[in-house]
Amino acid sequence: MPAPSLPSPRVIHVNTRGAVILAEESPETRDSRGIYLPNYIEPVSHIAVDIGGSLAKVVYFTRSPEQPPSPSIAATRGSSRAASDFSTPSAGSPSSTPPPLLSPPTSSRTRNGTLTPLVLESHTHNDNAATHSDGDGHHETLTYEDNSLDTDLLRSTILERTTTAHHIPGGSINFERFETSNISELITFISELISRSAVTNGVSIEEMRRGVKLMATGGGAHMFGDLFEKELSVEVLREDEMECLIEGMKFMAMIPEEVYYFSDERISEFSHPGAGKASLSKHLDGTSSTEGNEMPSVTSTEQVLERPSPNPPRFTVTFETGEPSAQLPCLLVNIGSGVSIIKVDADGTFERVSGTSLGGGTLWGLLSLLTPARTFDEMLALSEKGDHASVDTLVGDIYGTDYTKLGLKSTTIASSFGKVFKNRGEGKEEGKRGTFKAEDISRSLLYAVSNNIGQIAYMNAEKYGLDRIYFGGCFIRGHAATITTLSYAIRFWSKGRKRALFLRHEGFLGAIGAWIKNIDAEGSPAFTPS
Amino acid sequence: MPAPSLPSPRVIHVNTRGAVILAEESPETRDSRGIYLPNYIEPVSHIAVDIGGSLAKVVYFTRSPEQPPSPSIAATRGSSRAASDFSTPSAGSPSSTPPPLLSPPTSSRTRNGTLTPLVLESHTHNDNAATHSDGDGHHETLTYEDNSLDTDLLRSTILERTTTAHHIPGGSINFERFETSNISELITFISELISRSAVTNGVSIEEMRRGVKLMATGGGAHMFGDLFEKELSVEVLREDEMECLIEGMKFMAMIPEEVYYFSDERISEFSHPGAGKASLSKHLDGTSSTEGNEMPSVTSTEQVLERPSPNPPRFTVTFETGEPSAQLPCLLVNIGSGVSIIKVDADGTFERVSGTSLGGGTLWGLLSLLTPARTFDEMLALSEKGDHASVDTLVGDIYGTDYTKLGLKSTTIASSFGKVFKNRGEGKEEGKRGTFKAEDISRSLLYAVSNNIGQIAYMNAEKYGLDRIYFGGCFIRGHAATITTLSYAIRFWSKGRKRALFLRHEGFLGAIGAWIKNIDAEGSPAFTPS
Repeated sequence: MPAPSLPSPRVIHVNTRGAVILAEESPETRDSRGIYLPNYIEPVSHIAVDIGGSLAKVVYFTRSPEQPPSPSIAATRGSSRAASDFSTPSAGSPSSTPPPLLSPPTSSRTRNGTLTPLVLESHTHNDNAATHSDGDGHHETLTYEDNSLDTDLLRSTILERTTTAHHIPGGSINFERFETSNISELITFISELISRSAVTNGVSIEEMRRGVKLMATGGGAHMFGDLFEKELSVEVLREDEMECLIEGMKFMAMIPEEVYYFSDERISEFSHPGAGKASLSKHLDGTSSTEGNEMPSVTSTEQVLERPSPNPPRFTVTFETGEPSAQLPCLLVNIGSGVSIIKVDADGTFERVSGTSLGGGTLWGLLSLLTPARTFDEMLALSEKGDHASVDTLVGDIYGTDYTKLGLKSTTIASSFGKVFKNRGEGKEEGKRGTFKAEDISRSLLYAVSNNIGQIAYMNAEKYGLDRIYFGGCFIRGHAATITTLSYAIRFWSKGRKRALFLRHEGFLGAIGAWIKNIDAEGSPAFTPS
Repeated sequence: MPAPSLPSPRVIHVNTRGAVILAEESPETRDSRGIYLPNYIEPVSHIAVDIGGSLAKVVYFTRSPEQPPSPSIAATRGSSRAASDFSTPSAGSPSSTPPPLLSPPTSSRTRNGTLTPLVLESHTHNDNAATHSDGDGHHETLTYEDNSLDTDLLRSTILERTTTAHHIPGGSINFERFETSNISELITFISELISRSAVTNGVSIEEMRRGVKLMATGGGAHMFGDLFEKELSVEVLREDEMECLIEGMKFMAMIPEEVYYFSDERISEFSHPGAGKASLSKHLDGTSSTEGNEMPSVTSTEQVLERPSPNPPRFTVTFETGEPSAQLPCLLVNIGSGVSIIKVDADGTFERVSGTSLGGGTLWGLLSLLTPARTFDEMLALSEKGDHASVDTLVGDIYGTDYTKLGLKSTTIASSFGKVFKNRGEGKEEGKRGTFKAEDISRSLLYAVSNNIGQIAYMNAEKYGLDRIYFGGCFIRGHAATITTLSYAIRFWSKGRKRALFLRHEGFLGAIGAWIKNIDAEGSPAFTPS
């Protein structure tokens, strides 16, 4: 295969100084919270769309010079909260009781932000209508006090920008998600955003459309590009999917408290066996990973790496604080409907080196056949209540004990769904099948898919000698059990030597990459103010 | 982990000269056909049992000095027959019309063979009652004319054996399979075999039991060993599972026409692009493998390795003819309920280096929930009639075309079951789910599991620099689509540099290994004639 075209090293022209990630409004939006950029001035409005096999992701910027109300200091560092609850409640905050995970999903689309394209500069300045907040003040924000990321690199062009664009900086990057099968909803959303922006800015819809560009990436960019042009009457630019993923990852890694990993508590106990005895109850280590384990060179099974369970949490969320340049080289494992595994070299050169068809689409598809759940979140909620040991064959089910000679613990999964066939009903007639709980099936399949991805990802990281493994994609959804399983798989297979890294906007890497790729002051024809 | 205990290099005391694999009686027995050993004399009767997570496999030897009736020359070499039909019909043979794959499974247990332990030597010699055939003469056999495998190694102890054991050589290795969940059926079978042998040999049941040993391996040997001792009143010896697998593989590789692979037709076309144009119809290459492909360094997608389809066959079965010593080093991928991946060095040293919980138990368990099929063979039969493209998201479904930049063809599976979620029913209410055919679901899941195993197997072969990859285990069952998928995965990921090898008794490696390990003339206490 010819080497893929490489993104040339260049400055990303977005000022991330003082960036804050806004609080989630509901569990459904925990991975799509807005990012407020108080110092960024959008030179031209554009909308980025990443259309995957199952989901279409949208990213756009709305001007808002106001600071978000009720900022609170992020206090998750070092805490042991589950990943599904990143926002730390502060006393008196309306968010101090996070919505339960099982609350019915509610529509949380951003309905009041507007675009403010540069081309409309001469028309109006009533940007204040375009706040990122819905005005009831219940937004909680996580502020970030460490400005070490605010490098000259990021500010390189901000000064001249402020002289040519609006003089009032600040605004939010907005993230929205739609099902690809319901593409008309996405088109309606964008159409309304453009119409609303025209009204707010006091210009005609035609003029507004001329000032808006749609950056389309993901597989669907090829199929839906023409549809967007026709339905929205805006210019559509198609961007390469892998390039956007990498650009998006590189950009998001610059947002404070975006990149995180689960604590290495168990690893340190393992590295220093005297420091603590990793003897979890059966319930806890019953969640252990996969058969086929290369075990560490120890003879005691008690020293085997334990899986940090989400229930109760056995890990702490830890945020990356290194310089952006420390992110590369790395492996990016993007888990959407399918899985792409991309090797990124230190200079930004990248190559899609592997992947698997067993991804989110597999989990969602099979669970929609096997359980009453109709949405991703319902499936994840089911899995949180399940016990995989009722459907999986564990080593102990076969051996009656650990298989110590091979280092396989009795709680290791020998066969995913291995108990189902043998309990399919005594009469073996149809209608007499064994019954299995939707919760248990969901948990088993979540483990199976996550473990498998972690295993293949690790083998690629090992093959290419990469220590940093980022997981992105809409499969993760900030879900503690998923993150725990992926983290465990990486640390298990690497014997604690490699680490799984996650991004809070994991599902939007491609979309943010398409958005960021097209911010370039130096005269890309599409963006020269007309 | 401490190095596993290693089998010391030693002679295997079974004379395989003139060995023939008996014809299948039904599709259910295609991987459990008896092997007739005309020159072997069983020094002591014993029964080997390999108890896995889903299936229990039994191997034992019955004396039969007669040649099997109706031998026919194997003519499968170079043919293009599907793997499910290894026996080549000869004119006038009762087997010339192989039973259709969808015929209802019939019981085909060997009911008339008997054991003839050495301890009974002084009692009776009426061995003729213990023929391997059921007497109606419909056995077809594949004879083998190449005696190159008949090495001194194999005959090393046969001469002294004939002076101490029965004077009439010849008999069959028998293979039987039971569901582990129905262990009582297995116990009844062995109990009847022992009783029948006692009657045939004219000795008391107690005396017969004293002469019989039960070699138990597999995970269940630990749990069921005591049960066997109690119910059968015979001595039970437990054998290590991995050691038995390797011993079994090494022994079976010495049986003529046991090891085979699918033809390299497509590989040679790829290696010599001018020799032929690999342009299959959409139907054929629609069966292509998995997303995440590292493609060969070619720009034309037409030169990409094609998948040989089983319908119509695009491959020929080719048997290995090399010396047994050529089998090592290798990777053994044993696919039962779960998957074990074992690295075997040139000197026989072995280590279980990897595995996955996504194995046969996963396929069988999920399909027993998703389809009306109640047996493995019913599931495989369903898959043969299915079209995975109705449930899988292909690259073309997302991109509308090939993703040539990444070398992904439009027919590559991007997401297994990726179409299910988006077509789960418009109302999204329960009861309004989209309907998917059991055939299509079966084929998709067979592909998903097989592709995944092939991918992980390849990565391990690459990691350890092994060119020979053997696939064993009851998952395969001589099923063309399974073998094709595994073969394709290996040749695809290795860019045609590695090859998937199969064994016709793939599911019995552990059992035959347990059986062979305990044939040792040099005075293992358990086997010294009492």
